[in-house]
Amino acid sequence: MSTAIVDVITEYYRIPLPELMGDAKHGIHTHFELPVVKIILENGCEGVGYTYTGGVGGRAVCNMIEHDLKPFLIGKDASRVEHLWEEMNWKIHYVGRGGIASFAISAIDIALWDLRAKKAGEPLWKLLGGANSSTKAYAGAIDLNFPMEKLLTNIKGYIENGFSAVKIKLGQERLEEDIERVAAVRELIGPDVVFMVDANMKWSIETAVKAAKQLRQFDILWLEEPTIPEDYHGYSRISKEGGLAIAAGENLHTIYEFQNMISRGNIDFPQPDASNIGGITGWLKVAQLAYAHNLPVCTHGMQELHVSLMSAMPHASYLEVHSFPIDRYTARPLVIENGRAVAPDEPGSGVQFRWDLLASFKASF
Amino acid sequence: MSTAIVDVITEYYRIPLPELMGDAKHGIHTHFELPVVKIILENGCEGVGYTYTGGVGGRAVCNMIEHDLKPFLIGKDASRVEHLWEEMNWKIHYVGRGGIASFAISAIDIALWDLRAKKAGEPLWKLLGGANSSTKAYAGAIDLNFPMEKLLTNIKGYIENGFSAVKIKLGQERLEEDIERVAAVRELIGPDVVFMVDANMKWSIETAVKAAKQLRQFDILWLEEPTIPEDYHGYSRISKEGGLAIAAGENLHTIYEFQNMISRGNIDFPQPDASNIGGITGWLKVAQLAYAHNLPVCTHGMQELHVSLMSAMPHASYLEVHSFPIDRYTARPLVIENGRAVAPDEPGSGVQFRWDLLASFKASF
Repeated sequence: MSTAIVDVITEYYRIPLPELMGDAKHGIHTHFELPVVKIILENGCEGVGYTYTGGVGGRAVCNMIEHDLKPFLIGKDASRVEHLWEEMNWKIHYVGRGGIASFAISAIDIALWDLRAKKAGEPLWKLLGGANSSTKAYAGAIDLNFPMEKLLTNIKGYIENGFSAVKIKLGQERLEEDIERVAAVRELIGPDVVFMVDANMKWSIETAVKAAKQLRQFDILWLEEPTIPEDYHGYSRISKEGGLAIAAGENLHTIYEFQNMISRGNIDFPQPDASNIGGITGWLKVAQLAYAHNLPVCTHGMQELHVSLMSAMPHASYLEVHSFPIDRYTARPLVIENGRAVAPDEPGSGVQFRWDLLASFKASF
Repeated sequence: MSTAIVDVITEYYRIPLPELMGDAKHGIHTHFELPVVKIILENGCEGVGYTYTGGVGGRAVCNMIEHDLKPFLIGKDASRVEHLWEEMNWKIHYVGRGGIASFAISAIDIALWDLRAKKAGEPLWKLLGGANSSTKAYAGAIDLNFPMEKLLTNIKGYIENGFSAVKIKLGQERLEEDIERVAAVRELIGPDVVFMVDANMKWSIETAVKAAKQLRQFDILWLEEPTIPEDYHGYSRISKEGGLAIAAGENLHTIYEFQNMISRGNIDFPQPDASNIGGITGWLKVAQLAYAHNLPVCTHGMQELHVSLMSAMPHASYLEVHSFPIDRYTARPLVIENGRAVAPDEPGSGVQFRWDLLASFKASF
């Protein structure tokens, strides 16, 4: 029995968040979307892949998989993972090169890697290199809308849950308020906890430089997404004039955008996200690009899968543990030990959804 | 009665081509897709917008309009066109910044401009500036798969139909074959017809430079898309080392990509397409960017609408008259006089579809 693809099943889940979460440019999140792809082989094996959105576009992702990519995949050999990635990208390139297409290809590619790892009988952290079986991790809050007291309570909770690195959102109406919140968090966590901040593209270059200069006194590891991610020259200015290390990546959805940002933007922490950079294949291409530029690799979201990718890498920086509550819907909630996230050890992607718990959020697309 | 939006109707048409058309990286085209948006105002006015694809992704475009953009638009004031463009871009930015989102916003934006021009009682060529009532035009074939005899017959037809500028596709297996075809076409059309060529991203930098050097003897106005559009440094090398003027734009789907290409890629002919750069609002932003860089503006496809935009501009170069047969489905087929395309004079976008002729191609999305 061959590894030919005989079916591609697309499912759409729309999952409410337990509380409202806000950041500078998405506004308030109420739901996240979980487009899922199940790839069935002639030999009976099933691979599961998926992607995320913050509440919009998930149905279009499913639509593209169903109408444009499934017809291409049926009959293809699932073993040729990188070749299929290349072919899918060219198949839809005119409406692709980022955007919805990157999310659709991500979901499919993750399913193909799940199949590859199951066939190899290896967990991803070994199959992709095996540098470590765990990785440094930080808790990333979506807390721009939290009043000060709730902000501090939330951070305190992260520390109590074993994290030794935390990130908060910036981008209040007044920069002074951002600085007050950063000062209060640093005061709360003390000097030894690693601390990052994230402006979600809120600022002009001028404001970002001003903010960076004021933030330096608080020992900030990185300032994330100070402005729109296409402004490579602007990123370079912020980094050089502001004097803080800069992180970016969640809105760079092609490897070429990372190539331009890394070679021109002077960033220190590239953050590819396998759910929107073209899956594990796309993530690995960016990780190798970072390696060749003498930079570490980081992540955005999707910690239940990224924990395996980051553990595999010799140049991993910090894994983001995002605050969308995916742990409620998987068989293995993320394991944190001594401030590090531990990679799952079973063959495959290491992500098994609890379909019984997801069922009530399934919707048409 | 106000200009508040009370309904947004999305329709999907999948239209077969009269013959198979091929280029280097799309392969063979059999259909084009026409996602259509009708925006209805409280005052009863209706604006029509649309976009195109080469056969994939059109359903995802419609899905995004229906599920993600329509809910945002209902109740908004249709008069605030550029503001709505900005808001739509931010609303879906995480799954946007190019790709499907650019097509979806394009269709909506064109409908909003149709309403604006109808309300003003002006044709677009006047409303947008009024530099001319017509524009230089060329016939752009999709003919990579045509044998030599058919290639020449097709070009001869363009000249007989009044064109004084033509473009053919390059990217055959052997560069020698491309050169033979270019030589034969130049021989056919004589020295006075303007001649462009288009490689649809087929080549490496090395091959593109080699091709450009060999093409120079045939008096080529521009070499279009020699390689992938994200490789700004590569474009600059091809332009400088090959010694031919370079055109690009159909695969740049954000104004930021044009900004990077223009400031770094050394291109001479930027080609924004209102169907994928965010509609007329996006096209105008790129046109002004070109103006500020002392460059002309060109187009890709959608000639029935672009004829009005190009006519309006003081710095228009050549309008592409694309070979998808849209003229069969509009009330006013494109008018060519003395080698120039003439802008329609009625208020609105100037594009009225023949719904009776399109009806049989309507499909679910």
